[in-house]
Amino acid sequence: MDAVANGLRSNGAAAGATQGKPINCKAAVAWGPGEPLVMEEVEVAPPATMEVRVKVLFTSICHTDLNAWKGVNELHRKFPRIFGHEAAGVVESVGEGVEDLAPGDHVVPIFTGECGTCANCESSKTNMCKTYRINPFKSTMVSDGGTRFTVVDRHSGERRPVFHFLNTSTFAEYTVIDSACAVKINPRAPLEKMYLLSCGISTGLGAAWNTANVSKGSTVAIFGLGAIGLAVAEGARLRGASRIIGVDINSEKFSKGKEMGITDFINSKASGKPVHEVIREMTDGGVDYSFECTGIVDVLREAFVSTHDGWGLTVLLGIYLTPRMLPLHPMELFNGRRITGCVFGDFKGKSQLPELVDKCMQGEIKINFDGFITHEMPFADINKAFQLLEEGKSLRCLLHI
Amino acid sequence: MDAVANGLRSNGAAAGATQGKPINCKAAVAWGPGEPLVMEEVEVAPPATMEVRVKVLFTSICHTDLNAWKGVNELHRKFPRIFGHEAAGVVESVGEGVEDLAPGDHVVPIFTGECGTCANCESSKTNMCKTYRINPFKSTMVSDGGTRFTVVDRHSGERRPVFHFLNTSTFAEYTVIDSACAVKINPRAPLEKMYLLSCGISTGLGAAWNTANVSKGSTVAIFGLGAIGLAVAEGARLRGASRIIGVDINSEKFSKGKEMGITDFINSKASGKPVHEVIREMTDGGVDYSFECTGIVDVLREAFVSTHDGWGLTVLLGIYLTPRMLPLHPMELFNGRRITGCVFGDFKGKSQLPELVDKCMQGEIKINFDGFITHEMPFADINKAFQLLEEGKSLRCLLHI
Repeated sequence: MDAVANGLRSNGAAAGATQGKPINCKAAVAWGPGEPLVMEEVEVAPPATMEVRVKVLFTSICHTDLNAWKGVNELHRKFPRIFGHEAAGVVESVGEGVEDLAPGDHVVPIFTGECGTCANCESSKTNMCKTYRINPFKSTMVSDGGTRFTVVDRHSGERRPVFHFLNTSTFAEYTVIDSACAVKINPRAPLEKMYLLSCGISTGLGAAWNTANVSKGSTVAIFGLGAIGLAVAEGARLRGASRIIGVDINSEKFSKGKEMGITDFINSKASGKPVHEVIREMTDGGVDYSFECTGIVDVLREAFVSTHDGWGLTVLLGIYLTPRMLPLHPMELFNGRRITGCVFGDFKGKSQLPELVDKCMQGEIKINFDGFITHEMPFADINKAFQLLEEGKSLRCLLHI
Repeated sequence: MDAVANGLRSNGAAAGATQGKPINCKAAVAWGPGEPLVMEEVEVAPPATMEVRVKVLFTSICHTDLNAWKGVNELHRKFPRIFGHEAAGVVESVGEGVEDLAPGDHVVPIFTGECGTCANCESSKTNMCKTYRINPFKSTMVSDGGTRFTVVDRHSGERRPVFHFLNTSTFAEYTVIDSACAVKINPRAPLEKMYLLSCGISTGLGAAWNTANVSKGSTVAIFGLGAIGLAVAEGARLRGASRIIGVDINSEKFSKGKEMGITDFINSKASGKPVHEVIREMTDGGVDYSFECTGIVDVLREAFVSTHDGWGLTVLLGIYLTPRMLPLHPMELFNGRRITGCVFGDFKGKSQLPELVDKCMQGEIKINFDGFITHEMPFADINKAFQLLEEGKSLRCLLHI
């Protein structure tokens, strides 16, 4: 940790030289849907008003990057583009008007930013900032609608803009993000772990803590045991859930699940009957909370009917890339089962993550960060990391930039 | 009020003579879907274990009776049947094991009973008793699967059973209900008003108080200005909502709505654009709470998107007699809007209504009961009352039995 911090201080010290100037650096550029990323020399403009330029030190890949890279949805298809949203780094320089961040600050980028002044930011009920909430279709900066990256097109030889992604674009040595999307954290916290708070862990943990408010002794079912599902398990375990049932079609995920606190497993392909029947039998009528982390609407339905009537709550964490509507009849909502979506674990990133980091540092909250990092690689091997995730072989592959 | 109470005491005094014996009395029997009810002489058996026999004094008709009478849903079609679930009366006798009720007690029947001992009754999160929750398809008693009514069939001349409805069957001079479905209330409370707590007022009021927990200064939209919608308005008004927007296709309902506390009206047929756009413009982005009281799924969608993103809550109170599923895309749940069903205002009837009645008697809660009673008639005119409701001309027609 000290080594990291020292390294960062020296990076911070170097910031002055580049301030206000473009930086040329490496970035993994996606030129088209599903095409291997190309390590390009990009030019990163200085941060504009209320923006910061960040030297990215660690990043990794999540399924949202994977889907966007594949161009699953037509509207995603803005190329060339720099993906990546789970990361940690150090502020290199700040744009006009930025007061809460300074060069050298350790930051975690967040895809759901917090302007702090809109009606939604002022409400305690939501983290959906009116300006900087997650928007996978957004590909440019808020302040001027432009991009901060350019690259030379190998075919035309001309310099062209490179689009942003999820307010973050962290598959680059340097990126520019809105200050609303950069969370300053304790400089003593190990960035090579804290980067997980940028997406996966915060989302799952917060779904259990903030969205569902899982209570001690309660029962939980988690559908889909990727990083998000395991982070839900982590959150439920830390809250003292008595039973955490993991559901997946891949039995290989069960050993990792056990390590992360899952108590029971159901392989939905091998269960011989609908999963909700198995769960209702196991739990005398259904679990208190279910979490849907697959993005498949038929699984969503199973998750919904797996909860106990009267009070069961289903939290949606998957990305539903389908034109299908909710497969629930309106009258099914009258049995007291509820359903809700959850973005970024309902955390208000800038307001709440710093305290979470501090509590982790003080040992007050013991999150198993290491359990999520199944692989490590140099940034240059990013295409290998994509492949591992796609094949379901990795949870998170930590890329050292 | 005293006159009523005195009348009831004398009724109560007469109870001893009939205890344990069948009672022959008048009931409005439905012989087939949509056929005018026939005032028949029925025999009402004594209450079995954990049942009570109630002398019904006041009743009225709600849309659930109307739909069941029409036989809208195939499964409803159990005839002959005695409908009716909104009522008040006096206990005539009690069956074995009933300890909380005695002859002479003033009671309000409830269609969603409370056994008091199941897991759901023991939970503070739901009023969905595992045994006595609402079930429009149920047509017999829980204890033995039989009926307590018989009638002579005019065609065959044979005596045949008459089916029950909604745990209550109040279109009769005497009815037998499970003690779990009879709420004992303050004997000084005027039954000719308190009968409204049997369904309409409790449902709407409770939706605002218990389900949505409407807060002071908040904004509310109500879709459908029948008795339930107006009871929601009453609940929202009593909670201090700053703005209560009523939506209906019938502008004639607006003057009554104003009397009940509605502050703004939208005729959705005349608004010229989608109602949610009008509401969002009126409320800087949407209301805090919307209540859907029409049972129409397209209106449900309007109600959902009329709320403010981040925290809007839509409460469903309609009965959706359609095979159509929820017209919401799963991703729409990620904007922080929530949706939930509500049965009987989430009141636990036996536990909570007596206190509500007491508070009304003490003037602590000022519910405009009279505002809901637009018509009064003798029981014999029940078919006229059905017609008035069907034509949208009445809110509640009080039937004196």
